[in-house]
Amino acid sequence: MEMEDTRPFGHLIDLDAFPAGMVTGLLATARTIMSKPEYYCDSCHGKILATLFYEPSTRTQMSFQAAILRLGGKVIGFDNPGNSSVSKGESLKDTVRVISNYADILTIRHPQEGAAKAASLFSCCCVINAGDGGHLHPTQTLTDLFTLSETKGRIDHLTVGLCGDLLNGRTVHSLAKTLCRFPGNRFVLISTPELTLPPYVLSVLRDSGCAFTMSTSLLDSIGDLDVLYMTRIQRERFGAEEEYKRQKGVFVLDAEKMRHAKAELRVLHPLPRVDEIDYEVDYDPRAVYFDQTAYGMYVRQALILHMLDGAKKATPPRLTPEGAGLCPNPRCITRVEPYLPPLFTFGTGYVCGYCDHEV
Amino acid sequence: MEMEDTRPFGHLIDLDAFPAGMVTGLLATARTIMSKPEYYCDSCHGKILATLFYEPSTRTQMSFQAAILRLGGKVIGFDNPGNSSVSKGESLKDTVRVISNYADILTIRHPQEGAAKAASLFSCCCVINAGDGGHLHPTQTLTDLFTLSETKGRIDHLTVGLCGDLLNGRTVHSLAKTLCRFPGNRFVLISTPELTLPPYVLSVLRDSGCAFTMSTSLLDSIGDLDVLYMTRIQRERFGAEEEYKRQKGVFVLDAEKMRHAKAELRVLHPLPRVDEIDYEVDYDPRAVYFDQTAYGMYVRQALILHMLDGAKKATPPRLTPEGAGLCPNPRCITRVEPYLPPLFTFGTGYVCGYCDHEV
Amino acid sequence: MEMEDTRPFGHLIDLDAFPAGMVTGLLATARTIMSKPEYYCDSCHGKILATLFYEPSTRTQMSFQAAILRLGGKVIGFDNPGNSSVSKGESLKDTVRVISNYADILTIRHPQEGAAKAASLFSCCCVINAGDGGHLHPTQTLTDLFTLSETKGRIDHLTVGLCGDLLNGRTVHSLAKTLCRFPGNRFVLISTPELTLPPYVLSVLRDSGCAFTMSTSLLDSIGDLDVLYMTRIQRERFGAEEEYKRQKGVFVLDAEKMRHAKAELRVLHPLPRVDEIDYEVDYDPRAVYFDQTAYGMYVRQALILHMLDGAKKATPPRLTPEGAGLCPNPRCITRVEPYLPPLFTFGTGYVCGYCDHEV
Repeated sequence: MEMEDTRPFGHLIDLDAFPAGMVTGLLATARTIMSKPEYYCDSCHGKILATLFYEPSTRTQMSFQAAILRLGGKVIGFDNPGNSSVSKGESLKDTVRVISNYADILTIRHPQEGAAKAASLFSCCCVINAGDGGHLHPTQTLTDLFTLSETKGRIDHLTVGLCGDLLNGRTVHSLAKTLCRFPGNRFVLISTPELTLPPYVLSVLRDSGCAFTMSTSLLDSIGDLDVLYMTRIQRERFGAEEEYKRQKGVFVLDAEKMRHAKAELRVLHPLPRVDEIDYEVDYDPRAVYFDQTAYGMYVRQALILHMLDGAKKATPPRLTPEGAGLCPNPRCITRVEPYLPPLFTFGTGYVCGYCDHEV
Repeated sequence: MEMEDTRPFGHLIDLDAFPAGMVTGLLATARTIMSKPEYYCDSCHGKILATLFYEPSTRTQMSFQAAILRLGGKVIGFDNPGNSSVSKGESLKDTVRVISNYADILTIRHPQEGAAKAASLFSCCCVINAGDGGHLHPTQTLTDLFTLSETKGRIDHLTVGLCGDLLNGRTVHSLAKTLCRFPGNRFVLISTPELTLPPYVLSVLRDSGCAFTMSTSLLDSIGDLDVLYMTRIQRERFGAEEEYKRQKGVFVLDAEKMRHAKAELRVLHPLPRVDEIDYEVDYDPRAVYFDQTAYGMYVRQALILHMLDGAKKATPPRLTPEGAGLCPNPRCITRVEPYLPPLFTFGTGYVCGYCDHEV
Repeated sequence: MEMEDTRPFGHLIDLDAFPAGMVTGLLATARTIMSKPEYYCDSCHGKILATLFYEPSTRTQMSFQAAILRLGGKVIGFDNPGNSSVSKGESLKDTVRVISNYADILTIRHPQEGAAKAASLFSCCCVINAGDGGHLHPTQTLTDLFTLSETKGRIDHLTVGLCGDLLNGRTVHSLAKTLCRFPGNRFVLISTPELTLPPYVLSVLRDSGCAFTMSTSLLDSIGDLDVLYMTRIQRERFGAEEEYKRQKGVFVLDAEKMRHAKAELRVLHPLPRVDEIDYEVDYDPRAVYFDQTAYGMYVRQALILHMLDGAKKATPPRLTPEGAGLCPNPRCITRVEPYLPPLFTFGTGYVCGYCDHEV
């Protein structure tokens, strides 16, 4: 396919599509850029990144903006579809076709699942998924991996505690699915039984032969961990207010719990936090969640650099529909953009090529 | 006048003020930039474009942003007057005076007719009209001309079909008025009789000796055309819902109608489209409306390059009022900015120098 | 303290913290940049300014943007917290820690008093106060001083009229407090008795030995002035509508009043104006309020250049609380960001280190 030739790195929709060696290659580039940022300050001179943010995410958008700007590139885009004319009934296809004419690389955030995949079908330039609903957010996972690589020295043979709402957090799903591709990683799933990882992520862990245990107490588990990945527990996930109040403290990280942790523990958090990490912990050198955002910028620089390297703009080819019918997932992008060609692959059942929903 | 010396290219408020040779010169520059964009990537190094968008128009604003950024320049501006302090009762004059101090070139979009002319009276730098109400939108016309020039090889001796709501579309007015300045162009006006071109545009065509015919069927007319310029027909333009439904399909372009067209037809559309062009047509190589947006970026680069060439900032001179009284057009900028000096020229009647309304 | 070494210029929260020699040094740099802007167009190549505007202020934000862009740097930031994810319950601390990782210099505008000081405690890079509620706005004062320096040739030995609402205008408070540090300046306070300078500013003037007189008539006072600094009188400051109408004209500057002024008078205004300066005055060469905005851009360039010079990013040290308890000022940043350490200094009473409120 013509696309293959002109975009050696392709799009980044799902990190699963990148072999493990490609992931470690990205981390190596990120480390090089971080050590000598001034060598890279004009690497993308004359290039434009478009940020199509169909829902606001100031932090992610700024991280991408800082990344391209620090490579000498420039930014166009929107963050406010309510105010933007692109929201006035224009299809995702038309917007992507037009803006990808102006840009060299495009990053999209969208509330519907599969929106980034859909955008990649019509874009004249490379597309990076910056979050499509509750589905995927691959650059957050790259951020987490680079933080581990820099603060623990490795992304394998780690005992990783995942704490909080593991059922609904796409961040921990992605991280778990990626870390289990590297040898010797082990998970401790710290949550209420109702909020542990969903069955499909647990199967991925099992299939990969990755060990995991479950825990309902952060205090009891913290002493074993090399890494603690904190996430929010949202009040609305609990049936009753009393249940929420009773459980809440169990999953809050504070200075007292930190006293039971190893000296080499590293605490990560995708941010923003609400109150699941006490402000006192910020001054503990094992807390690296603020540094994590800096690592995120460097790994996005590495990603942009790889994707732009040798990439040429091209009109995307017409896609032949695979399978037929409508994806039953109500949050799938195909439900709101009816012109999209059906894309189903056959696994254990039919799987939607946009949102990965199994039919 | 001092202004003449320091801004060799002046402002661009109305394309009618540019001689035909200047227009073709711009297209030639656009072609050169498009063929070797990397030669121009620092041509406007250190220059700032301000985008004053008093109503959102994401596409036009991004096209201007991409244009200056690809020339090595930078951007400041706003797109959200509701959120901006400039909307808090500050006059257009004060905003323009202040922001033109920060910028080297200024582009303005405003819901009132004549706003760009008004801005040019107080700006310390060159002004480009990016749309003033239903009045003018000269860079869209340059975009259309450059698209014709690149996809048909010429902007003369063309049979051009204009289809849709020709009464209310400023885009087609501007294009028709400009194309009739070049020899051998002929128009087919495809619309309901109620929505054909307004009398003043028809007189311009007649005065220029340019031939035109009227048609109420896209299917019947498409076979004769070198160029088909599609526009939207808005539902609210029809008296009755049944009338709308009955007429709608007649002016929708689909694959079936394309089978009756010449192999060398080119289909343009200012975008965004709603449903007047079927998605199936997108894959027809004669459809150039997506490429048109890329051409728009290059011709805006050419325009900015010409306007900044040798331009120096200067305090605008005080204007002597010409004529007296208030323009009766309720959408004229003078109705909301009362300090503006009256500017009337005498033609067949008095003509407002801001909105071109004939008194 | 480690900070001192890596940030030779520190933060700019309050201009009072800058010695008079540092202020005149900044003005000298601004003058140099203004005379040869092209020499400085790459001075901050590769640097990023973050604009954290928790309330919209288009003019100030654009002035900062133009300043860093004209030095060859770049911009990230937000201007619309209602639309931004940073408003979704994230603390000021976390936002500042994260965004200061992406940027080299940070400018903040916030509706709460002391917010810029609070931001400086957690920022990894230099912070500039771009307005914290009714408290301080030091770059406006630098703008005013540079305008005086350029249009009067000096910032000392001037008779300065301050006209309008002197009670509530932080701009005039700051200017008065700074000008009285330079020899020979004298003030004429032109306002209704109820709206004259607040007692604490009058004490600063008295303590510095700076002369001032009060006046209730702009017409009577204008003839004595070297400088007239105009500000708005807001209708809501007057108890009764009739009182407002009766007083209003007394403090409006028009061409008639200008006839009684010296040939060397200079009229300044922080803008935006409403109707306190007649549009007719704009054409008087003694009116310099539009030029003032250009001077503001140059002095911000000078400030950014000084602050970035030799600055290295560093994690801010943990602060030891000074004093205890809560600041009683309801507009103090500590009232909405409860994790902030108490910072009180002892003067005549305790003074809050964030908002300067005396307890």
